[in-house]
Amino acid sequence: MANLKNDLFLRALRKEPIERTPIWIMRQAGRYLPEYRATRKKAGDFLTLCKTPELACEVTLQPIDRYALDAAILFSDILTIPDALGLGLQFSEGEGPSFKSPITCLSDVERITNLAPMNELGYVTDAVSLIRKELNGRVPLIGFSGSPWTLATYMVEGKGSKEFHKVKGMMYQEPDTLEKLLTVLSDSVTDYLAAQVDAGAQAVMIFDTWGGVLSKESYLKFSLRPMQEIVHKLKNKSSMQNVPIVLFTKGGGNWLNEMAATGCDALGLDWTTEIAHAKAQVGDKVSLQGNLDPCVLYGSDNVIREEVKKVLDKFGKGTGHVFNLGHGIHQYVDPDKVTVLVEAVREFSPAYH
Amino acid sequence: MANLKNDLFLRALRKEPIERTPIWIMRQAGRYLPEYRATRKKAGDFLTLCKTPELACEVTLQPIDRYALDAAILFSDILTIPDALGLGLQFSEGEGPSFKSPITCLSDVERITNLAPMNELGYVTDAVSLIRKELNGRVPLIGFSGSPWTLATYMVEGKGSKEFHKVKGMMYQEPDTLEKLLTVLSDSVTDYLAAQVDAGAQAVMIFDTWGGVLSKESYLKFSLRPMQEIVHKLKNKSSMQNVPIVLFTKGGGNWLNEMAATGCDALGLDWTTEIAHAKAQVGDKVSLQGNLDPCVLYGSDNVIREEVKKVLDKFGKGTGHVFNLGHGIHQYVDPDKVTVLVEAVREFSPAYH
Repeated sequence: MANLKNDLFLRALRKEPIERTPIWIMRQAGRYLPEYRATRKKAGDFLTLCKTPELACEVTLQPIDRYALDAAILFSDILTIPDALGLGLQFSEGEGPSFKSPITCLSDVERITNLAPMNELGYVTDAVSLIRKELNGRVPLIGFSGSPWTLATYMVEGKGSKEFHKVKGMMYQEPDTLEKLLTVLSDSVTDYLAAQVDAGAQAVMIFDTWGGVLSKESYLKFSLRPMQEIVHKLKNKSSMQNVPIVLFTKGGGNWLNEMAATGCDALGLDWTTEIAHAKAQVGDKVSLQGNLDPCVLYGSDNVIREEVKKVLDKFGKGTGHVFNLGHGIHQYVDPDKVTVLVEAVREFSPAYH
Repeated sequence: MANLKNDLFLRALRKEPIERTPIWIMRQAGRYLPEYRATRKKAGDFLTLCKTPELACEVTLQPIDRYALDAAILFSDILTIPDALGLGLQFSEGEGPSFKSPITCLSDVERITNLAPMNELGYVTDAVSLIRKELNGRVPLIGFSGSPWTLATYMVEGKGSKEFHKVKGMMYQEPDTLEKLLTVLSDSVTDYLAAQVDAGAQAVMIFDTWGGVLSKESYLKFSLRPMQEIVHKLKNKSSMQNVPIVLFTKGGGNWLNEMAATGCDALGLDWTTEIAHAKAQVGDKVSLQGNLDPCVLYGSDNVIREEVKKVLDKFGKGTGHVFNLGHGIHQYVDPDKVTVLVEAVREFSPAYH
């Protein structure tokens, strides 16, 4: 493997002194980029793009080639694990993901309990190895997974949801069934992230997109506990000793202390949580990643620069901050606005170090 | 007007001593009730149901007839004001509300600036008068409106949204246009709520369904400030002296102090905020309404009773609590579960007073 030329991102996550604040962007390889849309068209459909390592590598590198970003993130879908567990992931245009065989009861959970999903996920680790090789040490590579709770929401609802009445119905009707499902997923996510690290990922992030739809008590039990198990198991592996783990719960601003206590290295923050408030609460325990409102990128260059300054100011001086949006970049954003964002972080952040 | 036989709800909002905790349920007149579905069918379509005072009255009273609830809430839609401003509200089956003529620019805002929407909203005040008469003093009647920000999201997006990229794009591109729109809406909502009170509403609630999609800075400026103006203007009217005002921002758990400082009487809490945490922060300033997870109603009778106890315990002893769900009741809930909920609150809450 080539030596890493830019390790700002990893140093920020480890709270080591840095000369400026690193930046990457959630969903940086995505539909707002014309080159992404071209590769997506070439692939034919979204799942083929995810499942073909050469194409996944190509789109992962596109934003790295275009912008002065400080990290790459594996291009994949969060629902690869349920797909590997035989639920039959499918994407219909304009409808989002759905499963042919959702989880509706205990026997559905038992059906998937002793499977070996990693046997089906070689395309992901192949993509990681290839990306790491093609990056050639330019920036670190982030691996990722959906959180067990977030995977469970899709697996039980069968698709995206607004009210989550099936999975939350299961939570109150048959909590033991949900617990069993989360145990399967916790084991799978652990293996999945460890395999990504073995293949070359230099940090990992767990996306808990739907933890924020829970009450605090339910969040701690059904979303955070499985994530904590994953962190614990990963941190006990020798291969993971130098690999930072980032947890991101969208809408999790009320539970930062509990999240920070899992033993993870950093928390991702959505744009509804003030980063100053988060730092005051947990900044001595973990690094923070975020949290510009993705909609700022619809503003003028000047608005973007001013909003970047506000986030840097709110975090304040010192290491432990990775600049990012508070959620994935929207498909309607003008790619030139990302240049303005990245340059603003590079211009203004050295004053804080 | 008949004398009020049950004023527990109003006394709880005023923090006066009460003998048990009152309960009502957001969206209590709704699709989970077979009698509602029958009236809805008779009306032909949703807008006719809203715009026909006799039918709106009929569905408003249905949950009061069925359950031992402590308040009625006007049955209406939150988008009546934009409709009265000429945007052309329509509902397509399974798609939710949309507008024929959304707001896209400054001239669209200017077009609606000097209209008199109250001229078009007589059906609402007629419904309020009729409901108040038919209630015959059984329980108090709550009037309501969407918040200016929430109305603006639908008016600019043209329909419901996940990312709100149009209205949040306007926020960062043309904040003055958005401010002008919010001023129109703030004036309209004030007039609308005052007219509901003149017609017989005994408390009013402002539903800020989408304030929680904003950063704190944007929330304070674009969602809370217009609500504060409304509260201020209403509180200066002699007709409003005894009429409590409740503010509810879904996802607003991070901003309770700022919400409580508006001068409102109570805050609605969604289920992601612990009521003990909210009470510790703002319980000396305002009453609290909420906040059982609506999905608890999918649980067994025993689960419902246990979860009711938890909410009562977390609020603790004393007045200032109105029991409610943290969001509207789901359409899939078994109506008998609501009986269990209401009876549990009546059974367990006296011990806290």
